[in-house]
Amino acid sequence: MKKKKISIADIAKATGVSTTTVSFVINKKAKNNVSTAVIEKVEKYIKEIGYKPNLLAKGLRTGKTNIIVFMVEDISDRFFSSIARLMEEKAYKNGYKLIFCSTENDTERSRELLTLFKDRQVDGFIITPPVGFEEEVKTLIEEKIPVVLFDRYFEDIEVSHVVIDNMESMFKSVNSVFGKGCRNVAFITTDSKQSQMMGRLSGYEKAVRQHGAPRLVKEIPFFGVKEKSAVEEIQSFLDANPGLDGMVFSTNYLTKAGLKVLKNNKISIPGDMAVLSFDDDELFELYTPTISALSQPVESIADKLMESLLKQLNGKAEKDAIIQTELMGSLIERESTG
Amino acid sequence: MKKKKISIADIAKATGVSTTTVSFVINKKAKNNVSTAVIEKVEKYIKEIGYKPNLLAKGLRTGKTNIIVFMVEDISDRFFSSIARLMEEKAYKNGYKLIFCSTENDTERSRELLTLFKDRQVDGFIITPPVGFEEEVKTLIEEKIPVVLFDRYFEDIEVSHVVIDNMESMFKSVNSVFGKGCRNVAFITTDSKQSQMMGRLSGYEKAVRQHGAPRLVKEIPFFGVKEKSAVEEIQSFLDANPGLDGMVFSTNYLTKAGLKVLKNNKISIPGDMAVLSFDDDELFELYTPTISALSQPVESIADKLMESLLKQLNGKAEKDAIIQTELMGSLIERESTG
Repeated sequence: MKKKKISIADIAKATGVSTTTVSFVINKKAKNNVSTAVIEKVEKYIKEIGYKPNLLAKGLRTGKTNIIVFMVEDISDRFFSSIARLMEEKAYKNGYKLIFCSTENDTERSRELLTLFKDRQVDGFIITPPVGFEEEVKTLIEEKIPVVLFDRYFEDIEVSHVVIDNMESMFKSVNSVFGKGCRNVAFITTDSKQSQMMGRLSGYEKAVRQHGAPRLVKEIPFFGVKEKSAVEEIQSFLDANPGLDGMVFSTNYLTKAGLKVLKNNKISIPGDMAVLSFDDDELFELYTPTISALSQPVESIADKLMESLLKQLNGKAEKDAIIQTELMGSLIERESTG
Repeated sequence: MKKKKISIADIAKATGVSTTTVSFVINKKAKNNVSTAVIEKVEKYIKEIGYKPNLLAKGLRTGKTNIIVFMVEDISDRFFSSIARLMEEKAYKNGYKLIFCSTENDTERSRELLTLFKDRQVDGFIITPPVGFEEEVKTLIEEKIPVVLFDRYFEDIEVSHVVIDNMESMFKSVNSVFGKGCRNVAFITTDSKQSQMMGRLSGYEKAVRQHGAPRLVKEIPFFGVKEKSAVEEIQSFLDANPGLDGMVFSTNYLTKAGLKVLKNNKISIPGDMAVLSFDDDELFELYTPTISALSQPVESIADKLMESLLKQLNGKAEKDAIIQTELMGSLIERESTG
């Protein structure tokens, strides 16, 4: 029961103009070549019959699709999905559609997804790059495809990015825990070597040095870190370090695992243990006690991402279009460090 | 610095075969028409020069793209983003890539997104349809494009869907609250008329009738329901109904708003008020007290969605390919109804 597809030739025949003219009108390139009367006649007919150009074919000719791809580490992570939602709104307001995919921080899968979208000619990319994605980013730049990196970046590549000043934000956070009189403050993190995680570790180390306190770092293997293994790893770290009076977590999912461990061990927060999370979560506001957190400015991040990408989409010269933004997180002090 | 694009003609020239032969090899249609030696020669050359067929153009010819689109109401909602993540894994294992977009339950936007993907010839759709999306779904079916609805459906359309038995699941949930000795159990919901919400309301009404208890329903306007307005609406409902001893919420985000209100009013759970949420959330497990919830079986939902879509993708006859699945939710009784 499929309707016969209307072609440009059909429209040309019905309106008595050439197929070239119809094509000009459809692709909005008729202004200088075709009279207004003809443009109006063709547009009126197209509207009447409900003709829709084949955008897949159109993409082949014009290279402009008004689609932005947001390649995010994990779409089920609250931080990424909040940014994704905000970006969706902003893209929509600027006449773009946003589509997402999850890289799961898997380099090979990220490559496949990137190839898939490049082959389908989207207009631009926002990417939280996995480890080993340098060549892909360089190639995008060489091919003059708009791209902005997000959450982590590569120091050696001249490319737009929007990240948090992880070092200073974490330094400020850990300092606040020492400020409450804690002496043995542990840092629970992953073994990821990506820029955002290394920045957080440096911030902790700087604070520890400044306070002449011991460096107590637990690195949990990144792959599978969201599973129950995190709870087990934190438990054994706690057993091995009985003198702890403060715990700072480098991500919100590690904090959640840590809260389960502290609850299981009936360790009172903040009486026996101060707790602070890098990256806020709605749970922390509702938990008893409420949990202090370094909050990433999701609205500003989304604004900057869109601004940076639009500058490239609007065809600014490359060098001029590179915007590298570092934003500060806000420290929200709640009961867990009170 | 863009490399010159290699064409099929270039490959034909270099390997001394016709462009038709090259095209057969690239599109894996050479088996019956071309000798094995020639296929091997062409494939070897393609590999050597790193030629990649233009898949956008290829999509135009073959109509097969190995892409599934998951149009979800709100990618930042925990329920949807969990399903999205599971689906991504399952799609990947079956040789498909999954891409997402957020409809925000906005009918016009959903139409635009659907058109966008149809124009780009993806292989199939999984959709949480907004109100008024019947015609679009019917058209997909007429055009024989694989489609599975999810979370809500249209009774009048013969189409595959995976939903929860909202009525029975909610009936069971509200019954358990009456079972704890509550008499005045309120139902806090939205004013949405979609199938999943109407099912939940019916389940509540059935339980209330069975117990001869008063029907106490608060419908909060669906648009903007995730904003602070929900807190205000629940507060004023609570003020107007001082005799309540139980509250059942139809979604997890309404439960969260309700918990804020109860905390603000220093109402003790479950002493003064039993609380139950339709749709679980990791918060409910960690909250003090822990919150009882009707948990939707996300793993089974994702399994069934993939199974239903694959059946259509693998070209089963239409009637035979329709799978309509209703799954039961599991009642998880925690402290809030203890």
